[in-house]
Amino acid sequence: MAQDRLEQQIRFVLEIDALKGVLRRTYLLHVDRPENSAEHSWHVAIMAVLLAEHANEPVDTSRVVRMLLVHDVVEVDAGDTYVYDTAGAAAKAERETRAADRLFGLLPEDQGRELRALWEEFEEGRTSDARFAAALDRLMPVLHNVHTAGRSWREHGITADRVIARNSRMAEGSEALWEYARSLIEGAVTHGHLAPVRTRA
Amino acid sequence: MAQDRLEQQIRFVLEIDALKGVLRRTYLLHVDRPENSAEHSWHVAIMAVLLAEHANEPVDTSRVVRMLLVHDVVEVDAGDTYVYDTAGAAAKAERETRAADRLFGLLPEDQGRELRALWEEFEEGRTSDARFAAALDRLMPVLHNVHTAGRSWREHGITADRVIARNSRMAEGSEALWEYARSLIEGAVTHGHLAPVRTRA
Repeated sequence: MAQDRLEQQIRFVLEIDALKGVLRRTYLLHVDRPENSAEHSWHVAIMAVLLAEHANEPVDTSRVVRMLLVHDVVEVDAGDTYVYDTAGAAAKAERETRAADRLFGLLPEDQGRELRALWEEFEEGRTSDARFAAALDRLMPVLHNVHTAGRSWREHGITADRVIARNSRMAEGSEALWEYARSLIEGAVTHGHLAPVRTRA
Repeated sequence: MAQDRLEQQIRFVLEIDALKGVLRRTYLLHVDRPENSAEHSWHVAIMAVLLAEHANEPVDTSRVVRMLLVHDVVEVDAGDTYVYDTAGAAAKAERETRAADRLFGLLPEDQGRELRALWEEFEEGRTSDARFAAALDRLMPVLHNVHTAGRSWREHGITADRVIARNSRMAEGSEALWEYARSLIEGAVTHGHLAPVRTRA
């Protein structure tokens, strides 16, 4: 029985290795390539440990860390949907639900249920833990863009109005982090790394 | 003051982005490239969440997760030292101590001290949390090797006696995981993916 559980757990561990091959739109700071979702998940998890004091409401840091460790796991099957891709977003929920069924279904039932609940909580964004986790998930791409002279924003023709519309919800998890991010976004516009508004129809 | 802290924290967050460019010797399962230390850290952290029940002694899973999130951060400056590289291992401690001074020194003093203590605890391996974290850190490369037909072992001429000598300490953190890993290592020898013993002088 213990051996069965271990086999199921290892099966999941092997399967999610594929998250290292799921590429995001953001570029790394010290290496010239796009980021993948596994290393991104590590980064935001460590940010939760460091930045929890900036959450609007008290958060359970350990839960936020776990939530961020699993928040992108469904991308193993569903792929990464660019946050500014409104067409892709429509089918995203269905793809991700199927992915969650399969992936969390590999685990022993109690653990699959627990991790899936954390992922759903993150997606729904109704708890203070989920709102803070989502704020970190939004902050990091802003940092990556700002510190690569707006590389991903420019490649995809993203303008400041859209960056602000997308990221202002960061304030629901952390006013302090949103204030910081907004000043960086304004700086990117000033430096010509981010176009202020869409110039084509 | 809060703003100073945030600036220090973000500085650290930006700096450790470089861990995504530190390559390990192991190969990924679903993508044809070596693993980097950031995505590895994500993987072992999620393994801690899933596999804690197999630890020899009760562990504080949240501490183990944090420990694993930071356990390789010093590689940003010190690089990855291959576990079978005995020459490199000699200078490793000194390189990593200097890296820890610089990197953890970027953080607000209380947080730098806390993360450094977790890293040192991992390195010293004297607590049950550290022993279990180290067991996971050893298990994953065995899994990667076994499921890539011994690719990294074969590339570096590593033999089963060395794999067993290196990894048997896994049992200090988890007898169950070592038993599982040992059976995989034996299977790799049976399948010809791992040479049983060194054949050259």
